[in-house]
Amino acid sequence: MPTTVLSNIGTLVTNDPALGEGPLGIRRTAALVIDGGHVAWVGDSAAAPAADAGVDLDGRAVLPGFVESHAHLVFAGDRAEEFTARMAGRPYGAGGIRTTIEATRAASDEQLTVNARRLLDESLRAGSTTVECKSGYGQTVADELRSVQIAARCTDEVTLLAAHVTPPEYAGRADDYVTMVCEEMIPRCAPYARWIDVFCEQGAFDRDQARAVLTAGIAHGLVPRVHGNQLHQGPGVRLAVELGAASVDHVSRVNRADIDALAGGDTVATLLPGADFCTRNSYPDARALLDAGVTVALGADCNPGTSYTTSLPFCIALAVRELRMTPDEAVSAATAGGAAALRRTDIGALSPGFRADVIALDAPSHLHLAYRPGVPLISRVWRDGVLVVANRVVSQ
Amino acid sequence: MPTTVLSNIGTLVTNDPALGEGPLGIRRTAALVIDGGHVAWVGDSAAAPAADAGVDLDGRAVLPGFVESHAHLVFAGDRAEEFTARMAGRPYGAGGIRTTIEATRAASDEQLTVNARRLLDESLRAGSTTVECKSGYGQTVADELRSVQIAARCTDEVTLLAAHVTPPEYAGRADDYVTMVCEEMIPRCAPYARWIDVFCEQGAFDRDQARAVLTAGIAHGLVPRVHGNQLHQGPGVRLAVELGAASVDHVSRVNRADIDALAGGDTVATLLPGADFCTRNSYPDARALLDAGVTVALGADCNPGTSYTTSLPFCIALAVRELRMTPDEAVSAATAGGAAALRRTDIGALSPGFRADVIALDAPSHLHLAYRPGVPLISRVWRDGVLVVANRVVSQ
Ligand SMILES: [Zn+2]
Ligand SMILES: [Zn+2]
Repeated sequence: MPTTVLSNIGTLVTNDPALGEGPLGIRRTAALVIDGGHVAWVGDSAAAPAADAGVDLDGRAVLPGFVESHAHLVFAGDRAEEFTARMAGRPYGAGGIRTTIEATRAASDEQLTVNARRLLDESLRAGSTTVECKSGYGQTVADELRSVQIAARCTDEVTLLAAHVTPPEYAGRADDYVTMVCEEMIPRCAPYARWIDVFCEQGAFDRDQARAVLTAGIAHGLVPRVHGNQLHQGPGVRLAVELGAASVDHVSRVNRADIDALAGGDTVATLLPGADFCTRNSYPDARALLDAGVTVALGADCNPGTSYTTSLPFCIALAVRELRMTPDEAVSAATAGGAAALRRTDIGALSPGFRADVIALDAPSHLHLAYRPGVPLISRVWRDGVLVVANRVVSQ
Repeated sequence: MPTTVLSNIGTLVTNDPALGEGPLGIRRTAALVIDGGHVAWVGDSAAAPAADAGVDLDGRAVLPGFVESHAHLVFAGDRAEEFTARMAGRPYGAGGIRTTIEATRAASDEQLTVNARRLLDESLRAGSTTVECKSGYGQTVADELRSVQIAARCTDEVTLLAAHVTPPEYAGRADDYVTMVCEEMIPRCAPYARWIDVFCEQGAFDRDQARAVLTAGIAHGLVPRVHGNQLHQGPGVRLAVELGAASVDHVSRVNRADIDALAGGDTVATLLPGADFCTRNSYPDARALLDAGVTVALGADCNPGTSYTTSLPFCIALAVRELRMTPDEAVSAATAGGAAALRRTDIGALSPGFRADVIALDAPSHLHLAYRPGVPLISRVWRDGVLVVANRVVSQ
């Protein structure tokens, strides 16, 4: 395989404490060698081995590609008017999801695929080299099946969000919907997915319903993850820990028992500040989680209702401003944290042997992701060692 | 001059109520003809006249280019570490400016020019077709002179921010510094600037000092604008109105008397939510200002200390989330509002005769600027009728 050396890296975030300073394993004036699809060598720029090709980063920062562990990309339509009304004071409930279900059911497979690929492309240009993708806007067996099939053509990280909201034809019969999900939908869709997810929230599904869905998914070989504690305190976090979920996502309204459960378990807390931004919800208490030793991930939660952003850099800036995470903690959460939330050990760091999913910034340090909010700083992206994004680079 | 027709515009924001619906003069399925550097025709896409060239916008939104009326681009160095410390709890005062003054004085003209042009280029790619540019990091006659000269090579909207902070060599002698500014700096620098600005704030300059600087500027043909009421209530807003300033900027801490003064005067209130975001300051009460009939502009306040962003789309999203402006109000403030803050009648709208400063979004409506926070939506930018930015356009 051809090798490429990235040299004169201003700040290299490896996420490997053995390779540099602090928990982020930071090196200055560094180089990194890519061999085929993997990282082969990390060290000082002056000591870099010869390679078939070279890129002089001229002092720019290099990081592991962002790992987006929470995205809803299979849908049709937009809800810009609903967003505008909500910002003018209309409250958000789970009901708006039904608008997207209607549009998604009416769309062709091709329309859904084109839209998902557009958003994946946008995510990639924002530095996300791995993107999880959920179903959840079909909510019939046929529409969830095509949703996971479309997602499976886009990513390895496919999540069956079988119980997102009770669809209109089951209005008032949530238990009947859950029975159908467990007995028909999950068996049909499981072969195309890795994960089973449920929206455990007032107005969506309660503890027993969520447990039934996740248990049925586990029985079909899926690994659980949970939407929980977004709008109200509730059972989502503790149920996720109890069932060994890889992640519980949102976690904006928690109590001490929830934090203690997370600290005592293996479940990652994935924070989605873009959703809190777009719904004017209160932000999660990231400091309490981090100070309790909980592993924290950041996701953008791209979806047309409550967080129509693909930008993890934007979420990093919010995490610093609003969640009081340090820039180091936020960058770690968007890389290593996302990898943990997807139980991946091949991505989220730049040690030798890891996949060569690498981003270069138009800035000298990873701090600039928080320090320069709203500025598209991703200048180059390599995925599996291949340069897939090369934005115009302006001189520093 | 060659003509260009932009056709199949999904949502056209003209900012001319005579040309479409509401205060933004919105038209759907519209076309716009550019003749040389100006807008020549606006109407229905089906009725568009023939032109020498054509661009099919395929349902995308088109707006006037953003008018950035508040930017500090002539400086050297960055303050990422200070930002990180502040986010961890260290309070912000006006003193951090001195760090940048030291770096700026030490930099060559070429370094300052390259840095300013980099940020102007970044602003342009974010849709700002007009950018005001302040001095203020020299604070000696020679360093302010070269700052306004460098700014004048970048933009017509040059502001002499003669009294930004008392420089170290005048420590404890602010009045002596003001005297020097009035008697030496302003006379030397005025030929290169259009505007005179002062930072009227606790820790910077008080009412009498600010009045002296602005009055001296006026005597040398400059028009006043004021940094005021950022961190504390104070005299900035009322002084600006009293002296007929084009704009008073920040306006984050005001009382009823300030709002009444603005409502009764001709001074625009320019809100800089990026600075409040980056300093964790409280946001301005935009609703009180708008409801009182004050003309509001939005600026990004790009500077290395307190708002290192060039993105007016980011500021629009903050204005909607945090300042409770509607998306229409925020878009108007970033276009027509900015033009009013610069007393320009040739930009900020897309009526026939206006300059052809035009942006196209990778989205069907201007609402998406708030609805899709953090996503770089600017797909094309024309300035003076010339296509100057063409980001890769992905299908919708
Ligand atoms: Zn979600
Ligand atoms: Zn300023």
